[in-house]
Amino acid sequence: MCELLGLSANVPTDICFCFSGLMLRGGKTGPHKDGWGVAFYEGRGCRLFQDTIPSSNSEIAKFIKHYPIKSHHVICHIRRANIGKICLENTHPFVRQLWGRNWCFAHNGQLRGIKKKLKLQHFEPIGTTDSEHAFCWILEQFHKKFPKPPKKETDLWPVLKKLCDDLAEYGVFNMLLSDSHHLYAHCSTKLAWITRKSPFGKAKLIDDDVEIDFHHRTTPKDIITIIATTPLTDEEWTRAKKGDFLIFSEGKQKFFTTI
Amino acid sequence: MCELLGLSANVPTDICFCFSGLMLRGGKTGPHKDGWGVAFYEGRGCRLFQDTIPSSNSEIAKFIKHYPIKSHHVICHIRRANIGKICLENTHPFVRQLWGRNWCFAHNGQLRGIKKKLKLQHFEPIGTTDSEHAFCWILEQFHKKFPKPPKKETDLWPVLKKLCDDLAEYGVFNMLLSDSHHLYAHCSTKLAWITRKSPFGKAKLIDDDVEIDFHHRTTPKDIITIIATTPLTDEEWTRAKKGDFLIFSEGKQKFFTTI
Repeated sequence: MCELLGLSANVPTDICFCFSGLMLRGGKTGPHKDGWGVAFYEGRGCRLFQDTIPSSNSEIAKFIKHYPIKSHHVICHIRRANIGKICLENTHPFVRQLWGRNWCFAHNGQLRGIKKKLKLQHFEPIGTTDSEHAFCWILEQFHKKFPKPPKKETDLWPVLKKLCDDLAEYGVFNMLLSDSHHLYAHCSTKLAWITRKSPFGKAKLIDDDVEIDFHHRTTPKDIITIIATTPLTDEEWTRAKKGDFLIFSEGKQKFFTTI
Repeated sequence: MCELLGLSANVPTDICFCFSGLMLRGGKTGPHKDGWGVAFYEGRGCRLFQDTIPSSNSEIAKFIKHYPIKSHHVICHIRRANIGKICLENTHPFVRQLWGRNWCFAHNGQLRGIKKKLKLQHFEPIGTTDSEHAFCWILEQFHKKFPKPPKKETDLWPVLKKLCDDLAEYGVFNMLLSDSHHLYAHCSTKLAWITRKSPFGKAKLIDDDVEIDFHHRTTPKDIITIIATTPLTDEEWTRAKKGDFLIFSEGKQKFFTTI
């Protein structure tokens, strides 16, 4: 299996603290040693760093740990391969373009049989994972439903929720998805999040003897949500339930009602 | 304007030597200080590093200079902005997917009026450059002509040559394009290349007091072609002529005849 980490913030925020904890789970405090990747949105652009080396041992991961890249939305993934060999094209997050936006996707779980059942036409995978196939299928359904971008962003939300529910039928579908405006998440088995805001306190990594005082690194207006497969710090995280579909923007959770 | 650098090799090869020379032209020995990017193919995957900071001053560029990433095909670009502001989404190379392959593109020159004349449908730009628009247009024409990948790779070559000639009508179109299998280049005004093979000799950077002896870093079977806007070393480079369309694979130049 794999582990996910996402960030949504109302100010450009670096993810160095939680990232350094997660990276240890890639071969040191955890078994997810089959590569890792992280995507940082910067305006409409997206920076993607990936490696097939265990994250606990990766020079690129070490560089990112010490080079704070500030972003409103980040998606990170460490891999324990099940479907698809260990190679760059099978490494999450995956990035594709639709409606003049960069879409970024990372997945934890297995989706058995989707390659045969869910056929693709326009969005073709580069690698051989079930995850990239699922991502391409989501974008293909988006494109079928909305050849042009939806007029209201909220029109997309129930559509995506339904697609997530459909995919979850094939197995385990914990995922993070972003288009730079929103961070979407679906929980099939494991996902937890925490929203940090004023008054900021201290936090200690679970995977390392490192503590941080956010009070010294933030302003009272900052709102930052971190979402991960399992908690990365000793703070009080909220556990998502099976079937939960979550939306974050500017660090805050967004809700919609279906009629 | 901008500067281009590409590599095609029959063995995974790092581009550190020429890369370090080119990076100096981004704000130190040259005026191309409006960002830079480099894409390394690794199997079917593609690693993309980009920055909006001058390359001569970029921490990410420094990291890559000292962390040899070995690849069969590399495309690199340093930018001097004319159309499109300085931001990540306007930074070359651009990457898109077609036929289950990663396509990567970098451009030097200006193409006046193409946004109005060459309409896009499926491949939409993220940023505002004429270059990304041209790239999207190429892929759109590919997709129209070959909804499925061409049976023979060579079927694509005259199609791409014609598209390059069409784009060059709009201004200056020096470009590098790759799909991981081939490195394509078009010369409108400036492009030069050199093929290094056994017996390997020495080379000195033009932009820095650094010399290398390739004899110590290669095997007799290695064939490596470097292509750039202007020569980066004191070796004997071949200058491309206006309208030249070049194809390299495994380090070697490929030719085709049109009937």
